[in-house]
Amino acid sequence: MTRNNDIKALVFDVFGTVVDWRTSISTQAAVFGAKHNVTTDWDKFADDWRAGYGAGMAKVNAGEDAWKLVDTIHRERLEVILHEHGFPDIDEEELADFNKAWHRLAGWPDATNGLSRLKSKFVIASLSNGNVALLTNMAKYASLPWDAVLSAELANKYKPHPSVYQRAAELLGLKPAQVMMVAAHNFDLRGAINAGLKAALVIRPDEFGDSKDPDLEAEPDFDYFAKDFHDLADQLGCK
Amino acid sequence: MTRNNDIKALVFDVFGTVVDWRTSISTQAAVFGAKHNVTTDWDKFADDWRAGYGAGMAKVNAGEDAWKLVDTIHRERLEVILHEHGFPDIDEEELADFNKAWHRLAGWPDATNGLSRLKSKFVIASLSNGNVALLTNMAKYASLPWDAVLSAELANKYKPHPSVYQRAAELLGLKPAQVMMVAAHNFDLRGAINAGLKAALVIRPDEFGDSKDPDLEAEPDFDYFAKDFHDLADQLGCK
Repeated sequence: MTRNNDIKALVFDVFGTVVDWRTSISTQAAVFGAKHNVTTDWDKFADDWRAGYGAGMAKVNAGEDAWKLVDTIHRERLEVILHEHGFPDIDEEELADFNKAWHRLAGWPDATNGLSRLKSKFVIASLSNGNVALLTNMAKYASLPWDAVLSAELANKYKPHPSVYQRAAELLGLKPAQVMMVAAHNFDLRGAINAGLKAALVIRPDEFGDSKDPDLEAEPDFDYFAKDFHDLADQLGCK
Repeated sequence: MTRNNDIKALVFDVFGTVVDWRTSISTQAAVFGAKHNVTTDWDKFADDWRAGYGAGMAKVNAGEDAWKLVDTIHRERLEVILHEHGFPDIDEEELADFNKAWHRLAGWPDATNGLSRLKSKFVIASLSNGNVALLTNMAKYASLPWDAVLSAELANKYKPHPSVYQRAAELLGLKPAQVMMVAAHNFDLRGAINAGLKAALVIRPDEFGDSKDPDLEAEPDFDYFAKDFHDLADQLGCK
């Protein structure tokens, strides 16, 4: 078992781990659709929008694309799926605002209070592939009490590239082993471990609805396994 | 007069503008001195420590030194002044901790509540020459409710280099003119204006004690002039 008194900071995956992106996007998309007289399966719309995310980032990490913000990846994908779901042409200002639906995601029920408990004992920071502006606006919208907003943007690579995790530790003035990644996704925790960080799996069974199986089991070298942020706070001895 | 509805984010100088570095450093230094049986003028000790700051950063901006964190600049200067003030040799662990005195600075009396009021209407972020780790630890110590911790470290240049201000706007996803720099130092506000930002002078008459005159008068192209953060919040229409 990890001696948790070596851990000084917790860094968090955000989409799926802290916020419920699927419900938030499908809800906002339904409102946007109603305005334009469009009816479609809004959960599928959210999944289709999200589907551009991994591919867009993989191209950056592979060097096929220059550095590109997640806001841009979202926007490029949005322009594809709007037509597929029957939307008419939308003017630029409205499109730019709707693309920021990803800045307005609601936290899981334990997010704000659980993070506050963890913050009482550790430095807590985002460490998302989302860009700094997106994460900053989201923190304000969803009352996420970060000590610092860290992002893949500050490494110009996307998780699970090791430099993202190492850059976060460097910016916090800590050794990688003093930082623990908290995520609902095993691939992200594997990336963190490869970069020398500690790893905590927090399961989010409802992240994908019925569209995809979430990660619910820790791998043997993960340091913590928790049902939610309160459970993690309990295990880490936070008040 | 600026139409303040164009301003989306406020970025803040920290040393002197948000926190009272001189009192905080002299107080911690006196405790450290007592432990080592050293008596000296602790306000002068604080001023002497601070005196290494500008010169260290100027060398980086001039290209004479490679990028170097403020933590490192503080440490190099500390090793010089300890002997000048009669300290014996100090072991590494204790020295490293004392160097972090700069992470433990108290806010001016209006800092936390004034920033909270400004946060209700604007994105608020640090924009200090201090490194991210220093600013993150200080925010926790002094209860500074930043939406995001931004730093010269993210531009690899020091204020007043224009790239520091422009990088902050970029990371916030805003145009420079949508961001207002808040500082107690005219040179910093001049740097911000040169980079396309708005500028608000908040005066801090006690920053330097009786050792140096503070900036107390706005230049004609500054957008706001305030006595403290509450006054600024009033002028910006914050609750």
